[in-house]
Amino acid sequence: MQWLDFSAHAATAKLAELARAPHDLSAPEGLNPQRIDEYVASFCGFDLLYATQRVTAPVLDALQELADEARLIEQFKAMQAGAVLNRIDGFACENRQVLHTASRDVFEAAPLAPEAAAKAKRELTKLRDFLDELASGAIVNAQGQPFTTMVQVGIGGSDLGPRALYLALKAYRLPGRSARFIANVDPDDTAEVLHGLDLSRTLFNIVSKSGSTLETLTNERLVRAALARAGLDPARHLVAVTGEGSPMDDAANYLRSFYMEDYIGGRYSATSMVGAVTLGFALGFETVTEILRGAHEVDRAAEDGDIRTNIPLLLALLGIWNHNFLGHATVAVLPYSQALSRFPAHLQQCDMESNGKAVTRQGRPVNWQTGPVVWGEPGTNGQHAFYQLIHQGTEVVPVEFIGFRRSQYDNDLEVEGTSSQQKLVANMLAQSLALAMGKNDDNPARRFPGNRPNSVLLADRLTPRTMGALLAIYEHRIVFQGFCWNINSFDQEGVQLGKILSTRLLTLLAGRSGAGEAGSVVQSLLRRAKMM
Amino acid sequence: MQWLDFSAHAATAKLAELARAPHDLSAPEGLNPQRIDEYVASFCGFDLLYATQRVTAPVLDALQELADEARLIEQFKAMQAGAVLNRIDGFACENRQVLHTASRDVFEAAPLAPEAAAKAKRELTKLRDFLDELASGAIVNAQGQPFTTMVQVGIGGSDLGPRALYLALKAYRLPGRSARFIANVDPDDTAEVLHGLDLSRTLFNIVSKSGSTLETLTNERLVRAALARAGLDPARHLVAVTGEGSPMDDAANYLRSFYMEDYIGGRYSATSMVGAVTLGFALGFETVTEILRGAHEVDRAAEDGDIRTNIPLLLALLGIWNHNFLGHATVAVLPYSQALSRFPAHLQQCDMESNGKAVTRQGRPVNWQTGPVVWGEPGTNGQHAFYQLIHQGTEVVPVEFIGFRRSQYDNDLEVEGTSSQQKLVANMLAQSLALAMGKNDDNPARRFPGNRPNSVLLADRLTPRTMGALLAIYEHRIVFQGFCWNINSFDQEGVQLGKILSTRLLTLLAGRSGAGEAGSVVQSLLRRAKMM
Repeated sequence: MQWLDFSAHAATAKLAELARAPHDLSAPEGLNPQRIDEYVASFCGFDLLYATQRVTAPVLDALQELADEARLIEQFKAMQAGAVLNRIDGFACENRQVLHTASRDVFEAAPLAPEAAAKAKRELTKLRDFLDELASGAIVNAQGQPFTTMVQVGIGGSDLGPRALYLALKAYRLPGRSARFIANVDPDDTAEVLHGLDLSRTLFNIVSKSGSTLETLTNERLVRAALARAGLDPARHLVAVTGEGSPMDDAANYLRSFYMEDYIGGRYSATSMVGAVTLGFALGFETVTEILRGAHEVDRAAEDGDIRTNIPLLLALLGIWNHNFLGHATVAVLPYSQALSRFPAHLQQCDMESNGKAVTRQGRPVNWQTGPVVWGEPGTNGQHAFYQLIHQGTEVVPVEFIGFRRSQYDNDLEVEGTSSQQKLVANMLAQSLALAMGKNDDNPARRFPGNRPNSVLLADRLTPRTMGALLAIYEHRIVFQGFCWNINSFDQEGVQLGKILSTRLLTLLAGRSGAGEAGSVVQSLLRRAKMM
Repeated sequence: MQWLDFSAHAATAKLAELARAPHDLSAPEGLNPQRIDEYVASFCGFDLLYATQRVTAPVLDALQELADEARLIEQFKAMQAGAVLNRIDGFACENRQVLHTASRDVFEAAPLAPEAAAKAKRELTKLRDFLDELASGAIVNAQGQPFTTMVQVGIGGSDLGPRALYLALKAYRLPGRSARFIANVDPDDTAEVLHGLDLSRTLFNIVSKSGSTLETLTNERLVRAALARAGLDPARHLVAVTGEGSPMDDAANYLRSFYMEDYIGGRYSATSMVGAVTLGFALGFETVTEILRGAHEVDRAAEDGDIRTNIPLLLALLGIWNHNFLGHATVAVLPYSQALSRFPAHLQQCDMESNGKAVTRQGRPVNWQTGPVVWGEPGTNGQHAFYQLIHQGTEVVPVEFIGFRRSQYDNDLEVEGTSSQQKLVANMLAQSLALAMGKNDDNPARRFPGNRPNSVLLADRLTPRTMGALLAIYEHRIVFQGFCWNINSFDQEGVQLGKILSTRLLTLLAGRSGAGEAGSVVQSLLRRAKMM
């Protein structure tokens, strides 16, 4: 398959023309009831309200043409079926399949990538057996007590997704079970998490595909030392999630090993064993299955080619409209749900590591913008923080709101005729309108320009199934954008240079020679930083 | 005093000219040992290494001219002495002094704003007495037991700063004491925090200047209901931080009230009673005093007019160079310290709410960019997340690194000749170099363009005093930029429209009439959102 450059599509030129006079949401009738009714998509339990984007029927038609010209659905189907999409033609690259969707393609008689789906099923069975043994008392600590806490030790994709999902679904915890997370090489991170834990009843889940991630190995050593100091046998307290045959795939040192495959990138690995082990321990196997089911439903539904109904595809193209054509450098993801407090951090990784690229899949420099800066915090908190800038600042920030009609705990209180949950959703909808419509005023400091594009993604309640679906919606939004920009969304060459330089600095700090190229700069920097 | 527009300064034109060919850090010798030695500022225990910014001596000279022409130090001194700087000439505004620095001007015989400093001292004395009574057992619960947990209930400035400081200094907790925070109107936030707390030994600190913040009042009701359900007397478990004479200043309903003043904006209030009460409970009065001392030292030192030595002033001008002249829309603050995990969220608020403005202090629209989008996560975590984009993406993101030479817990382990703390700092310095210098490669996907401007702010260790200083450095960086852009950094008109529309939505949801203007749009939106 040969993919065209983003700038080569006829629809790109059409959209550039349309962007010269985008729809004015702040005009009288710029946002009217009819428009609100018309710009809605419904998909896998979610409704996307996007009348507050600066689009019109001709813009949507051109975005559909772009999706078609760039053959986004064809590429997406190829991905799910196991095509080697993690590559740059003619240059060294990972050259791998991209099969995170196979980790949840475990419900159908005919999975799209049968071999990968069979492996995923095998690991899920291992996990179910392990969780059953923990529940039955077949696996206990040296005193015969059950384990109560699992600490996941991982970083990046082995941390952000599982952490975001755990926080999102804490309301579904099994009685007496909880999870914690250690990521940072900062020794204070481990010290703070270990502080106050009952180590004798704690399992540590060490997650590293290569078995050689600096931060994770360092933290594993800190953990092993703490267990030894407490008179405990580390081999009874550690499990591993790693590549088959990696240095960590070692029954002598770990209670159990679960496998991750090299065709699942870290940032897309939350539904593989990378997320499933800790989530299974804390929330139960059934809850993990529900997350997978929600994601899987979206995986299949996202093969639909109509941008007006396929929410991930529509989000991808609205994002491209705002970023490439209206020129906005960032996008804010603002969930009105405290449980989703770390979901923006997960997306920030998944999106910026995938699409922060500047060469095409043919190794040519891009001459269009690729991934935006992605950031966000939960509402209503953000309203009392950075919303001032998004309403009245000179940087226009497109916003993706996410909300739910019902709360998780149902522990609510009616004040002045409405519940807290109603207040939460009303605030979100009000912000959406305010950003779009703006408002004039005699006092210039009280004027709101409006025309700040945004959309609202709504579901009934943040259940495990909804969470799985939401995760997959965003994964696919990112992948569709990468396909459209003709970049490889699945490698991460940009993290290498820092690693190389860091090794040089550490060589000098350890008193060894061999700082290599740029050695004098590195040495001055260490001296100036008063590190040597 | 009459302030000039940003575009009216001679230095602005000079800088625009210099920005046509900024220093090339990626060129051979673009970053050499001499440059690293030269571009360093030292101030109140911090070193700022900024050779990795795209500046030269002429650029720094022009930035100094800009600081002088805009009379930044004169304005800063006027602020600390109590000038009414929160105003827009000729238009309705809050018309208030800006005296957050007075909340820590409690160490000198001659404070800069004597009346405000005296009030701050009075509240600190009340706090010390209260903490003494808790320690001595004069204040206990109904069973005669000491309180162990304080939950701060506030939002925005009444949450982010105190929370960031508590997380930063958790290593200094008093034995048997801890703090939690509730902010969001999302009822699941309160439910999750209350879940598993021993309410009988918990104090709730309700923080609202007006005594009428929707989220805080709603959460206070949820808290009172939970206490009542547990058979506890809310009046014995709640303290208030509020304006004197507000509805919350009521001895019948609160164990104790502490006062906040209307001349301290929420986002600058961490060193007032807004932060001091909970931090004092969890960390002790001495620790609070040390935070104030660190901030106060910076307040005084920041009156120095030399941009090459005054770090907050230098950070402000480097930020303006990157944002207004090199055209970068965002700035990332990346602390290499897990303890500072929420400091970027605090800065995001403080900066974006202060400087996300589009009218001058004379009520004219600006024709220059004001505040950037501020975001960030701690390193090394970010290296495994969004660093791909900052190294190789098409959006250039200026970075402000923050690091410390020693860890807080000193619970470290040497692996391959270096400690975790050394690895942490080495990673930060390596990223700084990599972003600046870049690297060529035959494989286009492995090329790094370099010229990504950044600086490194370093101190010995994250102590309470260092934390206070760091907080003040950033507060003043923000204030200096606002002065330079000739905007009012102290109001927040941009949050009003969302509040008004939200009230209309809630009116409809409660089944009352009176949706007012835009009523039909609001009604369609609620229907489409399936909320009615």
